[in-house]
Amino acid sequence: MENTKASLSVPKNWRLDHIGIAVHDLDTAISCYEELFETTHYGREVVPSQGVEVAFLEVQHGRVELLSSIQEDSSIAKFLAKRGEGMHHTAYRVPSVSKELARLEHLGWELIHKAPVMGAHGKKIAFLHPKSAHGVLIELCEKVD
Amino acid sequence: MENTKASLSVPKNWRLDHIGIAVHDLDTAISCYEELFETTHYGREVVPSQGVEVAFLEVQHGRVELLSSIQEDSSIAKFLAKRGEGMHHTAYRVPSVSKELARLEHLGWELIHKAPVMGAHGKKIAFLHPKSAHGVLIELCEKVD
Repeated sequence: MENTKASLSVPKNWRLDHIGIAVHDLDTAISCYEELFETTHYGREVVPSQGVEVAFLEVQHGRVELLSSIQEDSSIAKFLAKRGEGMHHTAYRVPSVSKELARLEHLGWELIHKAPVMGAHGKKIAFLHPKSAHGVLIELCEKVD
Repeated sequence: MENTKASLSVPKNWRLDHIGIAVHDLDTAISCYEELFETTHYGREVVPSQGVEVAFLEVQHGRVELLSSIQEDSSIAKFLAKRGEGMHHTAYRVPSVSKELARLEHLGWELIHKAPVMGAHGKKIAFLHPKSAHGVLIELCEKVD
């Protein structure tokens, strides 16, 4: 019998956090999404370790992260060269990135990071390989107090 | 001065609803995401008007929609042939799809649907053209009572 939404419990550990969008020009993309959501961006930040500059826009129940490259060889630059602008990753907040990485590695998932690294805004993050998730680059993130 | 998250009001009208993922085989993809989220899918449904079969997985603050093609010429079949599996669209719930379409068209956004159409689970939906949103296919959806 097909499950109905009402009969399900929502997994406690997985919270949709944000959608990452790769863009050529951060200023133009910010204006575009500010117009769409009728809001103002926040958290514009250069992340030197990733070779990117990012900015966020908040919506109800989530956020959009715009990512532009500030280095020729950044992963965003490579993504843009290969696929053009568009959705780059989906991020979920979990209570412990390390625990999820261990669980998923045990299940045979391919991980990009075997241990959490530092992301924008001082969060612990790690990426799962798109190969393991039907073409989706998945970020796990953990709030650090 | 850069905005801080604390100083912003979250736009009331835009709620992140789900991420749509195009997949070759729905059963395999369902198993994969059930394993990831440690949950069970729901709402598996054929949508003949779109030539797709879909299934949903709930997480905190959102959902994932898996979409497979059931027709050679469906837009999902074309997407898969061109780009392979991966993120297909981002959906936002808004109070009125018609009102947002009118507002955005007036602002010069390119719309795929100029009026709402019927989507999965009897929702009113409409798509904005990726050209207007830095390569992202955006779905607007409205709950119908």
